[in-house]
Amino acid sequence: MPVPAEVLTALEKILGDRLSRSKSDLDLHGRSETYFPPAPPDAVAYPETTEEVAGIVRVCAAHGCPVVGWGAGTSLEGHALAVRGGVCVDFARMNRVLAVHPEDMDVVVQPGVTREALNRELRATGLFFPVDPGANASLGGMASTRASGTTAVRYGTMRDNVLGLEVVLADGRVIRTGTRARKSAAGYDLTGLFVGAEGTLGLITELTLKLQGQPEAISAGVCAFDAIGPAVETVIQTIQLGIPMARIEFVDAATAAAVNAYSGASFPEKPHLMVEFHGSPTGVAEQAETFGEIVADNGGGRFEWSARAEERTALWTMRHNAYYACLAARKGATALVTDMCVPISKLAEAVEETRADIAAATIPGPILGHVGDGNFHAILLVDPQNPMDLAEAKRLSHRMVDRALRLGGTVTGEHGIGMGKLGYMAREHGDAWDVMGEIKRALDPQDLMNPGKLVRQG
Amino acid sequence: MPVPAEVLTALEKILGDRLSRSKSDLDLHGRSETYFPPAPPDAVAYPETTEEVAGIVRVCAAHGCPVVGWGAGTSLEGHALAVRGGVCVDFARMNRVLAVHPEDMDVVVQPGVTREALNRELRATGLFFPVDPGANASLGGMASTRASGTTAVRYGTMRDNVLGLEVVLADGRVIRTGTRARKSAAGYDLTGLFVGAEGTLGLITELTLKLQGQPEAISAGVCAFDAIGPAVETVIQTIQLGIPMARIEFVDAATAAAVNAYSGASFPEKPHLMVEFHGSPTGVAEQAETFGEIVADNGGGRFEWSARAEERTALWTMRHNAYYACLAARKGATALVTDMCVPISKLAEAVEETRADIAAATIPGPILGHVGDGNFHAILLVDPQNPMDLAEAKRLSHRMVDRALRLGGTVTGEHGIGMGKLGYMAREHGDAWDVMGEIKRALDPQDLMNPGKLVRQG
Repeated sequence: MPVPAEVLTALEKILGDRLSRSKSDLDLHGRSETYFPPAPPDAVAYPETTEEVAGIVRVCAAHGCPVVGWGAGTSLEGHALAVRGGVCVDFARMNRVLAVHPEDMDVVVQPGVTREALNRELRATGLFFPVDPGANASLGGMASTRASGTTAVRYGTMRDNVLGLEVVLADGRVIRTGTRARKSAAGYDLTGLFVGAEGTLGLITELTLKLQGQPEAISAGVCAFDAIGPAVETVIQTIQLGIPMARIEFVDAATAAAVNAYSGASFPEKPHLMVEFHGSPTGVAEQAETFGEIVADNGGGRFEWSARAEERTALWTMRHNAYYACLAARKGATALVTDMCVPISKLAEAVEETRADIAAATIPGPILGHVGDGNFHAILLVDPQNPMDLAEAKRLSHRMVDRALRLGGTVTGEHGIGMGKLGYMAREHGDAWDVMGEIKRALDPQDLMNPGKLVRQG
Repeated sequence: MPVPAEVLTALEKILGDRLSRSKSDLDLHGRSETYFPPAPPDAVAYPETTEEVAGIVRVCAAHGCPVVGWGAGTSLEGHALAVRGGVCVDFARMNRVLAVHPEDMDVVVQPGVTREALNRELRATGLFFPVDPGANASLGGMASTRASGTTAVRYGTMRDNVLGLEVVLADGRVIRTGTRARKSAAGYDLTGLFVGAEGTLGLITELTLKLQGQPEAISAGVCAFDAIGPAVETVIQTIQLGIPMARIEFVDAATAAAVNAYSGASFPEKPHLMVEFHGSPTGVAEQAETFGEIVADNGGGRFEWSARAEERTALWTMRHNAYYACLAARKGATALVTDMCVPISKLAEAVEETRADIAAATIPGPILGHVGDGNFHAILLVDPQNPMDLAEAKRLSHRMVDRALRLGGTVTGEHGIGMGKLGYMAREHGDAWDVMGEIKRALDPQDLMNPGKLVRQG
């Protein structure tokens, strides 16, 4: 059902020429990063204030018109596809850092600020925002998908790093959740409820985020293993010793090969761990040395580490480029990126099974992941001209989901539900999924906030 | 309205003699740790399984009978008072540790396990559960009140340490939230919703908790300051340097005096910080030394620290006994314990104002707190025979709440709402409190789960 003309008129009254109906804008906001078919909205709104967002939602609520939030468009599961049309609310113009509180180590931002922009703005303060999903996502989007990434093992996910929110609800009410105090026992954790809700309960219009002090010293290093088992065992022992890894990343042999081809590196074509420590100069040196001993105990190769910034940057640039290196490993390919997370005791088994599965498949799929969290991805490489490839990728992904649930894990560690994982919610959550639906109906009885996502449909 | 006879008959069918109506049992479960008038339930149930809990709730739901959970009875805000009568569900017999997963560093427990019992059981594994609210509370109760305490600055609150729950809902459905994976982006964070819900949305019947490795080395120490300002500044600078304090506690001059009198110590009668570091032997030594330098920079007294277990135990025994030391400072007194939490930049101001307020009051009130979180308590000492004392304590507490909200904080950092803070929820949360009510009505439309608490009363 197209958006009624009176809705557009009312929205234009609020937004003027910041309501767009241009084909290019609709197309842009109807696409996702991956394989889902396009689903454009009927209009794109570019609000500049919370009041404008509330006005948009009130107009839409009065006419039963869907509302879909849009951050940087970097979601991998089609979260922002307007599958029932309606108005896409693009937060690009709500991109200001509103307040930095260095003593309290927090910051108040609008949802359109990207994590890179935030960290640029923070540089002079000695503080940084640690959550790093790879993409330069918007902070509103990162909160809505409960993003995490390479640093979650040390600093947590978005769940752990949002102190409070301002949210526009489905009826246009504006609420604030949380405070700038570090903790509270005052009632239901609404902040935690909206983080990860994928825009289905309301639109986040402001975030208060925890910051971290830039570490005095950083050490980082890499080592190879003959198999995944000893690599995971190394990580388990390091965590149990209480050695605080800031990042601990796994790449498999296929990823190492792809990185070599892409960036001229010369990693052995074996599983690798890449690790980083944050602390005092003596602290990070000691941590790296101890880690090296654990690696040796587990039969790993020589652990080469450095506290020098340029070597560290080279290492993490390589890790961050691993996705592109994998893409380049198959000419013209696009990727279906899987995302499973299991208890770490099951990680070696999960990766080994997945690797064997992919080895027997018709498409390649390097594996990499955030091994400290038990979270990994297969980058399933698909020829977009060949529908059999996508079918094969979906089959492999489906088997990974089965594996995650069988091993006591979750169908998504950090990418979210969006369009891609809705079919697995009943299996992961059982009756708890109905409870999610009951909450959704209580807060959005018309089902207008990002409809078609997260809760049971119809 | 008394519980109908058919409810009691049906419950006896489920529980046999584990349904108690003895006066002593009703009285025991109608009392709280503090000043609230008794409110006994009509019966006390001692279930042994989740199925029995679900059976109890179904019977009660069919007859509109309230259900109130009971852990160890250590709550300070009257959370478990049966203000509308009904059935008290005492989890004392659901006190088993169901599974320890050392590699995954998690544990599955029944709600009646206390934190001390859990840590006794874990001792041989090299792991421990870090949340320490002081009292030997049950883990179900700690989750329900979102407890924290001295170690939250390092290890977080119950919000951060519960991976998953089993919950019996108001209609008797049993759901599971979360998984044993360390993180998930699969839908609404129901775990976070039930943690801190104070039993108003359902009864927690099983918890999966994160564990920590017992640190290789611990250092701890204490130092005096001439004023609260430099003490707080010391903490802020230490956090900003990224030095990971495992505990950082503040006691004021009155508390120091009370501790001296109670345990024969000889602290200067000044504000003090007590701090603990967890890590490697060289790490905790370096951290203590650096902390000592920051103390000196801020004009604090000599920072005496030790890595020896006996000295450390003496220090924390003193800190844990501070509550009793304060009670003993006024003969025959009981306490109204306040609980405010502010952004740390406002902490010195908050404590100074509170201290001045108490100095001008008719009752004494030593102050102590978890300074790394911005959370502190005044132990307002009340002669139970003198109603003017309680009125004065409530007046001071009320002014602390005003102060917390004015300074951007919360009316309760860790004790919860219960009976004591319900009147402040509208002011702290505004329309967000209504959202809590909407969630409550969606999940408990008959208002039977711990009625009279947390949400707006009809």
